[in-house]
Amino acid sequence: MSILVVGSVAFDTIETPHGSAPEVLGGSAAYFAVAASYFAPVKLVAVIGEDFPQEERDFLGSRDIDLTGLTVAKGKTFRWTGRYHEDMNIRDTLDLQLNVFADFAPVLPESYRDAPFVFLANVDPGLQGGVLDQLTCPPRMVACDTISHWITGARAELIALLKRVDLFVINDEEARLLSGERNVVRAARSLLDMGPRSVLIKRGEYGVLSFSPNAIFAVPAYPLEEVFDPTGAGDSFAGGFLGYLAQVNDLSEASVRKAIVYGSVVASFVVEDFSLRRLRSLTRDDIERRYRQFVSLTEF
Amino acid sequence: MSILVVGSVAFDTIETPHGSAPEVLGGSAAYFAVAASYFAPVKLVAVIGEDFPQEERDFLGSRDIDLTGLTVAKGKTFRWTGRYHEDMNIRDTLDLQLNVFADFAPVLPESYRDAPFVFLANVDPGLQGGVLDQLTCPPRMVACDTISHWITGARAELIALLKRVDLFVINDEEARLLSGERNVVRAARSLLDMGPRSVLIKRGEYGVLSFSPNAIFAVPAYPLEEVFDPTGAGDSFAGGFLGYLAQVNDLSEASVRKAIVYGSVVASFVVEDFSLRRLRSLTRDDIERRYRQFVSLTEF
Repeated sequence: MSILVVGSVAFDTIETPHGSAPEVLGGSAAYFAVAASYFAPVKLVAVIGEDFPQEERDFLGSRDIDLTGLTVAKGKTFRWTGRYHEDMNIRDTLDLQLNVFADFAPVLPESYRDAPFVFLANVDPGLQGGVLDQLTCPPRMVACDTISHWITGARAELIALLKRVDLFVINDEEARLLSGERNVVRAARSLLDMGPRSVLIKRGEYGVLSFSPNAIFAVPAYPLEEVFDPTGAGDSFAGGFLGYLAQVNDLSEASVRKAIVYGSVVASFVVEDFSLRRLRSLTRDDIERRYRQFVSLTEF
Repeated sequence: MSILVVGSVAFDTIETPHGSAPEVLGGSAAYFAVAASYFAPVKLVAVIGEDFPQEERDFLGSRDIDLTGLTVAKGKTFRWTGRYHEDMNIRDTLDLQLNVFADFAPVLPESYRDAPFVFLANVDPGLQGGVLDQLTCPPRMVACDTISHWITGARAELIALLKRVDLFVINDEEARLLSGERNVVRAARSLLDMGPRSVLIKRGEYGVLSFSPNAIFAVPAYPLEEVFDPTGAGDSFAGGFLGYLAQVNDLSEASVRKAIVYGSVVASFVVEDFSLRRLRSLTRDDIERRYRQFVSLTEF
């Protein structure tokens, strides 16, 4: 089954305690698409500027990613500059140039409109809703992400969107902000009341909590000796997660749990190097190997 | 198999966002002993003042806890006053009166000296080592805990002690402080190099990581809608953990993992009310029930 993803493709300039990387491939849709492409075909909708190099386009195209929906607009590609603290759970945005992304109005190519799996990466909730309006068949699963910027700046639109999605992927601080609840379990229950059938709360190096009305699933993150660059971990997690679900085309609790572990595995690789570099050499066999390590890490 | 615990019995005055509790039973050895007594007989070494009420002594005695080593000294019982923030991972000590605990010099009763399981709760590492000197048989397992106060103030003594223990129980911030490593995996490896055969890192609401030279085990905390009072969670965890190991008298990796889950389960009950109140009504059946919930919470 194929997965439609709508989000950003960007150039990131990143500083971490381990070093820096200028103008490297980034953006929510780029991370998601490459991660998901290990499991299922991806249809990408994003906008890039005229400065986007052919080699990066070729890299995306070398994966099982349909680039029909990757629009080239007049101007420069979205750029983000960030610096991570010693505690890499904390980062500062040093610079943000929306460039062509400022006028992003996603239009789905005809061939995308019956996608059975849909991921609405972090963009304006109004635009996320507009993507759903263009679908011609009810998808099997719609998932969305968001950030604090929209929770505070477009709260009503976000809450309207949540009534239309099956799965809400969000980090713990954002869950607290949106729900007004400090306790993560109460926060998740409050988000479930807003509409989605399940809520996945990302807790960075502490792993993931998944909530549905009848079940809670808790999984730690894969313990790494070196987290090189946390950028894109959340979107790669979502890519591995939805990718696996699209591959098995089964939304049972058992599959959802395996999907969460696959998402965690892919994210654990992504943070081992800057940008998407680690995924340029990563194989599906590597993923399976670490999945088995994850089993022995957690079984009792 | 029985468990020897050496530590504090105290009165705590606690303020949390949910309320306050003045002069309630606390102390590392009290939490540990009551938690462990669900699984195995406990031999307690601690000091209390003349003001310690008979009813609290009766409560401890009503559990499978040998109080021969509970000394009454002239003066008042150790008192601690603390306040938790909205984020209950953070607390301030408002007042500390060591009282009789200032001169605590643990002497093991003759009947305690062949204990097969030993827990050295947080006291001066010199005193912890002195307890080991009094043992007449090599124990099956010696575990110890510590706090930042000793890491910075008695570092050499602590490092000497670590060469004599099998298991080091510590929280993540303390592990970072002692090892000088920010990354928790590197911190644990560095602590293993100091001598203990395994290191258990407590991460509060995020669960526990267990490290031995050949294996890592990661387990989330039981997700609670209400954490009422986190005091004693770490010592109750250690009590459930060592209690289970003493009960099964088996130190295989499989047993250690189950023990970690039992420890997490007991701690999850303790934080549901102030002080040790929740343990006054808790049954072993309640523990088994939540253990099974823990299995469904984490299995995939």
